[in-house]
Amino acid sequence: MVKTEIRIIYGDTDQMGVVYYANYLRFFEAARNEWLRAKGARWRDVEDTHAIYLPVAEAKVNYKRPARYDDVIVVETRLGDLGKVSLRFDYRVLRGEDILAHGHTIHACVSRDGDIREFPEALLAQLRV
Amino acid sequence: MVKTEIRIIYGDTDQMGVVYYANYLRFFEAARNEWLRAKGARWRDVEDTHAIYLPVAEAKVNYKRPARYDDVIVVETRLGDLGKVSLRFDYRVLRGEDILAHGHTIHACVSRDGDIREFPEALLAQLRV
Amino acid sequence: MVKTEIRIIYGDTDQMGVVYYANYLRFFEAARNEWLRAKGARWRDVEDTHAIYLPVAEAKVNYKRPARYDDVIVVETRLGDLGKVSLRFDYRVLRGEDILAHGHTIHACVSRDGDIREFPEALLAQLRV
Amino acid sequence: MVKTEIRIIYGDTDQMGVVYYANYLRFFEAARNEWLRAKGARWRDVEDTHAIYLPVAEAKVNYKRPARYDDVIVVETRLGDLGKVSLRFDYRVLRGEDILAHGHTIHACVSRDGDIREFPEALLAQLRV
Repeated sequence: MVKTEIRIIYGDTDQMGVVYYANYLRFFEAARNEWLRAKGARWRDVEDTHAIYLPVAEAKVNYKRPARYDDVIVVETRLGDLGKVSLRFDYRVLRGEDILAHGHTIHACVSRDGDIREFPEALLAQLRV
Repeated sequence: MVKTEIRIIYGDTDQMGVVYYANYLRFFEAARNEWLRAKGARWRDVEDTHAIYLPVAEAKVNYKRPARYDDVIVVETRLGDLGKVSLRFDYRVLRGEDILAHGHTIHACVSRDGDIREFPEALLAQLRV
Repeated sequence: MVKTEIRIIYGDTDQMGVVYYANYLRFFEAARNEWLRAKGARWRDVEDTHAIYLPVAEAKVNYKRPARYDDVIVVETRLGDLGKVSLRFDYRVLRGEDILAHGHTIHACVSRDGDIREFPEALLAQLRV
Repeated sequence: MVKTEIRIIYGDTDQMGVVYYANYLRFFEAARNEWLRAKGARWRDVEDTHAIYLPVAEAKVNYKRPARYDDVIVVETRLGDLGKVSLRFDYRVLRGEDILAHGHTIHACVSRDGDIREFPEALLAQLRV
């Protein structure tokens, strides 16, 4: 599990005075970038090295408590599932002890032409560490 | 069912050359605003009139095909479920005949203090039309 | 002069209850896309056809009155200046008769390698119409 | 002068493969929040304590070199001018030694009703430190 800290700015909030719901997907992206960095890789390098892409096939967020301006939130990221042609990341967003949201993204493994492909063995080995 | 047209700009895309995944939640919001407008109401007026809020409790998107710069996409919005204390909108995003994505948002009905409340009868009547 | 209508959503606002200041640059982009479309061209096609890019070299916004949720704003776009290697667009943002903001963007004409280039004659002719 | 580090994500980029121009205004906001924090204050607390707002009256960015995915950029923030009813922040965005952009924001001091007001003496003293 990898933790990523994010400081909320005005630009993240909406007129309800809380973080706009779409921005959690931005936070999830920042968090899975850091998860991968903790494995010694950059998202883009993985795609370049293996000539694959990992586009998001599904994203889901459950919102429990609002995040607010100037909060420091923490996104906890886990590799939830690693299949032959897709993987899932699970996320929890916390402020201190409070869970603000949780969710997941499912990523397909595709070739540059967009065809489904199996993960290269070398990549699987790296992700499983 | 209500249709909302959206023109994709550079600012919606990312370096993969496609619309960034979080922006579909922006499109969903624009689309449910128009759904409500078709019922003769504005989202904010509903909240003000009935002293309630309808925050998003859950959001889900399934991504099928990428939307690209300058595409005109159409978001089809339906009221998927209308319970006593929550409602669900279902969305389909199309470019011509192609389905690009589908998803839903679930909204809780809460008081200004954040407590769960039943929908006012007058609001239910308006939404059911 | 070309007019572009934009409907403000929650996602455009911040917790001050007004449109977040960075979003005016999104509106400017949507507006210059429409300005170019009115000349019979798409921004991207111009770049592809002439093997040039028109990145923003400078952007400026003066904020006069706030735009709010559900407002329909109009962005008026004019070609302010057309030099040999750069051009400027001037924008005014209105809600009804009220000017909410005005500003400009200056775009350089560069090759794919990022070197400054003179505008192709065919493009100049098209933009001058 | 206060330095703020920002890690670029996919969501910051556009299909040109570089950071979308509007996002620099987000970076500027994050950076002036940190500038103020270095003075021992939070932006919002300043507004609450003194019953004033500091909305952006003008924003300008000059773009020199593009920022890219996964870059760590640094925003240097200085108080450029402190008048009786407005102040200006100057920003430089760097990646290592390279200047990517520079710009400024001018903020008016207004009452809750939107009328121009002189800065409270206590606030001036705090900002001048």
